[in-house]
Amino acid sequence: MERVVIAAVFLLLFSCQPSEAGRVVVRRPPPTLARRQRHYTSPRAGGDGGGGVSVPPAVQYETRWYTQRLDHFNSAPASYATFQQRYLVNDTFWGGPTAPIFLYAGNEGDVDLFTNNTGFMWESAPRFRALLVFVEHRYYGESMPFGGTRAAAFRDARTKGYLTVTQALADYASFVLSLKANLSAPAAPVVVFGGSYGGMLAAWMRLKYPHIVMGAVASSAPILSFYGIVDPYAFYDRITDDFKSESKHCYDVLRKSWDVLDDALATKEGQAQLRRTFTMCNGSSVQDIPSLLESAVVYAAMTDYPTPSGFLTPLPAYPVRAMCRAIDASRAESAEASSGAANDGNSNSTAQLTLSQVRDAMDVYYNHTGAAACFRAEEDDDPHGMYDGWNWQACTEVMVMAYGIRDGGVLQPSPFNFTDVVDSCRNYTGLPPRPFWIETEFGGFDIGNVLKKSASNIVFFNGLRDPWSTGGVLKSISDSIIALVEPKGSHHVDLRFSSKEDPEWLKQVRVKETRIIARWLKQYYSDEGIAA
Amino acid sequence: MERVVIAAVFLLLFSCQPSEAGRVVVRRPPPTLARRQRHYTSPRAGGDGGGGVSVPPAVQYETRWYTQRLDHFNSAPASYATFQQRYLVNDTFWGGPTAPIFLYAGNEGDVDLFTNNTGFMWESAPRFRALLVFVEHRYYGESMPFGGTRAAAFRDARTKGYLTVTQALADYASFVLSLKANLSAPAAPVVVFGGSYGGMLAAWMRLKYPHIVMGAVASSAPILSFYGIVDPYAFYDRITDDFKSESKHCYDVLRKSWDVLDDALATKEGQAQLRRTFTMCNGSSVQDIPSLLESAVVYAAMTDYPTPSGFLTPLPAYPVRAMCRAIDASRAESAEASSGAANDGNSNSTAQLTLSQVRDAMDVYYNHTGAAACFRAEEDDDPHGMYDGWNWQACTEVMVMAYGIRDGGVLQPSPFNFTDVVDSCRNYTGLPPRPFWIETEFGGFDIGNVLKKSASNIVFFNGLRDPWSTGGVLKSISDSIIALVEPKGSHHVDLRFSSKEDPEWLKQVRVKETRIIARWLKQYYSDEGIAA
Repeated sequence: MERVVIAAVFLLLFSCQPSEAGRVVVRRPPPTLARRQRHYTSPRAGGDGGGGVSVPPAVQYETRWYTQRLDHFNSAPASYATFQQRYLVNDTFWGGPTAPIFLYAGNEGDVDLFTNNTGFMWESAPRFRALLVFVEHRYYGESMPFGGTRAAAFRDARTKGYLTVTQALADYASFVLSLKANLSAPAAPVVVFGGSYGGMLAAWMRLKYPHIVMGAVASSAPILSFYGIVDPYAFYDRITDDFKSESKHCYDVLRKSWDVLDDALATKEGQAQLRRTFTMCNGSSVQDIPSLLESAVVYAAMTDYPTPSGFLTPLPAYPVRAMCRAIDASRAESAEASSGAANDGNSNSTAQLTLSQVRDAMDVYYNHTGAAACFRAEEDDDPHGMYDGWNWQACTEVMVMAYGIRDGGVLQPSPFNFTDVVDSCRNYTGLPPRPFWIETEFGGFDIGNVLKKSASNIVFFNGLRDPWSTGGVLKSISDSIIALVEPKGSHHVDLRFSSKEDPEWLKQVRVKETRIIARWLKQYYSDEGIAA
Repeated sequence: MERVVIAAVFLLLFSCQPSEAGRVVVRRPPPTLARRQRHYTSPRAGGDGGGGVSVPPAVQYETRWYTQRLDHFNSAPASYATFQQRYLVNDTFWGGPTAPIFLYAGNEGDVDLFTNNTGFMWESAPRFRALLVFVEHRYYGESMPFGGTRAAAFRDARTKGYLTVTQALADYASFVLSLKANLSAPAAPVVVFGGSYGGMLAAWMRLKYPHIVMGAVASSAPILSFYGIVDPYAFYDRITDDFKSESKHCYDVLRKSWDVLDDALATKEGQAQLRRTFTMCNGSSVQDIPSLLESAVVYAAMTDYPTPSGFLTPLPAYPVRAMCRAIDASRAESAEASSGAANDGNSNSTAQLTLSQVRDAMDVYYNHTGAAACFRAEEDDDPHGMYDGWNWQACTEVMVMAYGIRDGGVLQPSPFNFTDVVDSCRNYTGLPPRPFWIETEFGGFDIGNVLKKSASNIVFFNGLRDPWSTGGVLKSISDSIIALVEPKGSHHVDLRFSSKEDPEWLKQVRVKETRIIARWLKQYYSDEGIAA
């Protein structure tokens, strides 16, 4: 049960944070860039119900610990402190000292989330005789500096200060060299994998440590989602496009729904109408409806997977389409209502229709199984220890720019204002944000010309349904820096466990990725004079 | 006067440190990895006497300051502290926003040392219409964190901890982006230059920040002088080879001289003999002779320049040859003495001959002008503020491995023992050394295969007379990572101001470097669609 819930968090985590942040920053500081995704109470949710995917039995691993340095870039005595960094290993398929090591660059969460959900690594390991290693990101899961407890690690800005991307990458570099030494496998080629923020880490690892990882599979890695490179409206624009592509009517209903909701919430009668239309759980109120709708719209777009997925809320295949179909099912009534007359009574019935349509769409997202009794607003707890860390990162340095919501989109408009974002983050952390640091350290501008001469062996996967693809590398840069772009793809869908129902394009993506990795390895063995 | 002295320090600084360190570590901890090079008092030394080179009048610059962050890789509040980083600018030749910026990556010393001595940048700026910028390394010169004073910056390990290579590189990256923004020159290509440690920084800058510097001229950059990559005896072996190449007799005399000196120092009669042979200044004693001889041998090898140079001690062209000629001048006497008889009296006269020969060689190095009255041991002061910083760096992370001295070399044998090096550094800093960190961060193993796929636009110059070339990149890696190797070259001789007496090979090296830079720029303008 728990496992399925975890899986959902993994897939949605990075995605949902800045989308939420964008609106939160402008309207309700301080930003909670990450948040839990448990909007709905369903006694039967979880497990593998509703088309859910359980973790295959092949996913077996050993938990180990690496003694990691606290600060790689400073020689002050405090920097020499160490902490225990968790990593998970499976050597079932490993072909020995010169066979590849597949490394997952852990992102913002428990490493077992990634271990359990990166099916592509598990499924390709036998072919490549690869050792599978999943390393946990500092300050997430159980890899806590300052004694191993979350409370100590997150005590204050002085302790949280060691949570940076560059430290995490240096952790992985140090870890890999130690691992290879312990395995007596100095020549083993290392391929690094990651999705979302993990994909950013994988790509950056190949850029910064090419002597340690010989290739990177960076899935849905928005390494260009930074100020001055990406259009800050692009993220939400894409979500609008996703819904618009299903039906003009669906788009129209969602676009108009925000005013309808606001109007209803503004009056007692309207609130009563909402209570009649939406069954809210105890502890939640109709005031939570806009936020629930927003989450459903954003996350459906990101996880617009081609097969049913069983995550926090079990979802049908192509949930955006399913939500639009729910809205469009009442199109006839809608047409009637609009054409009937222009005055108050009819306007009210139009509003009621919109609310019903929104509810039906939310039902698809929150109650695909039909087992849920009521809508529940998100809770504030953080069972997997992600948000403390991510909120800090996203307001100090990893300031992904997915903020502005244009008029005429499927979400409530929210103009982008860089100063507001910075101020809001400053209020949240008590420190000056560094919105340009990631670009200074990792680049981004003119990426094609830069990387074609200074990098190789990266595959960037992006699915264009995924709003994060707006910050991804969408054009191949060279014959070894390859962009795989799928119009129907969503957030790191390529890394998921395969399913018999996978569409042909998804199968082909994985075939291509496998071929690319094989090519890297062939070149590596040839360069090194190792008989493969 | 002062300027010439400074120039010498620049050229010798990095070179002399580890050579000294090698012996110091094993025999007299704690190591003083850098030391001043003022062994001899000459009232007329300095200036441009003795074939010295004064700084050309074209070397004019403006001093500016950049507000630099204390710690780029940490978000703790203390990291946000800033300091004033010095940089020197000359825009005489600059062709405007799309013309190149030539950046010198300051190494361990006052930045004006490098500004005044990197003639190649000054001489090629007009041709490229380049802006010249020389940026000072943190914790050197006047770029002191913690309020701007050396005393505060070097107060203790907590303040010194921010002196690391990675911080320095991030300083340069941040600085360049700010500079270009202030110049409204976002598209200006930046070429980074450096010699010795500065050459290592230049190469690493291109590896780590290819989006910021589009090419690097790394002169005499021993980026492979690290444990497990370089033979730790190679540095001193090369010095022996340098002297051996001049004459077998010269080599024999130097090789034997250490026992002769030790024997003489062991008895009162011997010490009297030394006092008669070597005129020591007040405050210095014959006990200082071995150290003076060692320095002369090491530094002559490193600065075995083809033209007279006027540094701390004015030197003739090819000082190794000149020292050997001084030794060989008495070859006839030597032959007589050896063949005369085999007993005590003759043995004593052989010893006397060796001491005279050593003195004559030292005279070449310390008294080329004939103006010096006596030999003076080095002093302990640090007028240019280099050694505090470099000693710290070389014992914390930049642990260049130039230590072991084999039996049968021109210096006193000193076996390499890694544990001793580490222990000695630990005693010196009070912290565990990190001998593998540079390799973790920047690589080095299998550098050809790694860089051919992950880097471009670097020229590595090495002169094989220079013992530091043993840690250099001596083979071209690709058509844009080019090793220029000169059998007769010495420590970053290519970067010096040109002279009419320069040999043809040296002229050709500079022609090649100029062509390579021109090729990079042409490619850059083509890629960017900028009319050059």
